[in-house]
Amino acid sequence: MSIVIVGTVAFDSVETPSGKADNVLGGSATYAAYSASFFTPVQLVSVVGDDFPAAEISAFNERGIDTEGLEIQAGGATFRWQGYYGDDLNAAQTLATDLNVLETFDPKLPAAYQSAPYLFLGNFDPSLQLKAIRQMRTRPQLIILDTMNLWIDIKRDDLITTISEVDMVILNDGEAKALTGESNLVRAAALIKGWGPRIVIIKKGEHGALLFDEHGVFAAPAYPLEEVFDPTGAGDSFAGGLVGYLARCEGSAGDNLRKAVVYGSVMASFNVEDFTLNRFRRLTEAEIEARFAQFQQLARF
Amino acid sequence: MSIVIVGTVAFDSVETPSGKADNVLGGSATYAAYSASFFTPVQLVSVVGDDFPAAEISAFNERGIDTEGLEIQAGGATFRWQGYYGDDLNAAQTLATDLNVLETFDPKLPAAYQSAPYLFLGNFDPSLQLKAIRQMRTRPQLIILDTMNLWIDIKRDDLITTISEVDMVILNDGEAKALTGESNLVRAAALIKGWGPRIVIIKKGEHGALLFDEHGVFAAPAYPLEEVFDPTGAGDSFAGGLVGYLARCEGSAGDNLRKAVVYGSVMASFNVEDFTLNRFRRLTEAEIEARFAQFQQLARF
Repeated sequence: MSIVIVGTVAFDSVETPSGKADNVLGGSATYAAYSASFFTPVQLVSVVGDDFPAAEISAFNERGIDTEGLEIQAGGATFRWQGYYGDDLNAAQTLATDLNVLETFDPKLPAAYQSAPYLFLGNFDPSLQLKAIRQMRTRPQLIILDTMNLWIDIKRDDLITTISEVDMVILNDGEAKALTGESNLVRAAALIKGWGPRIVIIKKGEHGALLFDEHGVFAAPAYPLEEVFDPTGAGDSFAGGLVGYLARCEGSAGDNLRKAVVYGSVMASFNVEDFTLNRFRRLTEAEIEARFAQFQQLARF
Repeated sequence: MSIVIVGTVAFDSVETPSGKADNVLGGSATYAAYSASFFTPVQLVSVVGDDFPAAEISAFNERGIDTEGLEIQAGGATFRWQGYYGDDLNAAQTLATDLNVLETFDPKLPAAYQSAPYLFLGNFDPSLQLKAIRQMRTRPQLIILDTMNLWIDIKRDDLITTISEVDMVILNDGEAKALTGESNLVRAAALIKGWGPRIVIIKKGEHGALLFDEHGVFAAPAYPLEEVFDPTGAGDSFAGGLVGYLARCEGSAGDNLRKAVVYGSVMASFNVEDFTLNRFRRLTEAEIEARFAQFQQLARF
């Protein structure tokens, strides 16, 4: 089943303790789409400038990512982000943000996308996330929302409005606490569920993730990596793998959702092994299945 | 199989966001012994003053905790600790420490203890931990060491010497990093294993625990509690449940060690539900098994 992914496409310049990369492909929708594409066809909604390389569009298409919804703004420049990671690889430090074409981004879902069964709203402005929801002709089986502290800080009310319309919220532990004002994650998840979503997933970086749904709590392990090369896009890759797997299974019934969280963790664990999309560009399905088996080995008792 | 537990017995005065308790029973050996006693007979080695209530000694004995090794120093006062927890329930703030009889503590293992198959060295001075090891007539099947940052700060060399003589080290993530100078836990565990122990367990508080042994890594989940009443003794309860379960199973073969880590987590999750030993005093085996099943439910996928 195909999945619509809405979010940002960017050029990143990033420095980590392991090295640096300049003007490389990034953005929440890019990472999520690449990650999801290992499981299911993807329909991408985003905006770039006409500085965006045709080769990258071809690369999207070769991965089964439809780009009819990728608006190319004539005369515009693609969104750019510059940042670095210190010893705390969980927290990116932003050095510069050039919104460029993102400043006037107004997501438009092509007609062919408007009855997709899965809609993933990558991290961007919650008012625009809501606009994307409104463009669906039929209510998707599952609407999944990702966010970040920027929106909690400056658009909390809009964010809560959008959250009330989705089925699943994915956010990290710091964001869950900031959004709810609750220091305890169990209570934070309960509060968010009170606003509407039936599923809340709280990412805890190197400590794994917690899934709260109608069946209770699932504590997903994280893969203990000896080295994290570049954490950029880890959260988006997690979300992309998760929703991609759900779309492939055609639903979140039974244990699918738990397995989806683990596949999300698998994809994030690959993504951080190299800069930009480098690891995904050479990743195989056999590697994904092998790492999933390692997660099973890691957690069994 | 019986287990010798060496460590401190104390009176604690503690305040947490949930309440306070004055002059209540505490200490690393106390928590570990109570926790282990649900699984196996315990032989306790520690020291108290003659202010220690006979009723508490009877309570130890009723739980199957032998107190022949509990020295009662005439004219001495029992070790006292006063502290509090702020919003960060992972870090105790010490207000006062009165070592009293602990100042001259020199652990003496009764003859009946000296061929026990399991020896647990609770958190105290690493030189004294070594002295306890030296008193064993036959090499125990398993020697387990717990520690804390105080000893890493002031007695690092002695600690590493003692670590080199044990089979298993239990410490928390901050301690593992401080002891090894490694910010990555996988590399920190490998360094500690290089000093001698074949098993390293790193506790991560609300994020569970990592077990590193010859079979690889096990990521144990933590029970997502809505409220932590008093974290005092959580680490000791974890260790006590872990070694108690191993002693009951007569070894760390196969999956016993993974299950032991989970039983340790089960015992810690009960302990934090009330002040001092209150929860353990009313805990039943049926409750322990029910929570173990909840951990299985929490982690399966």
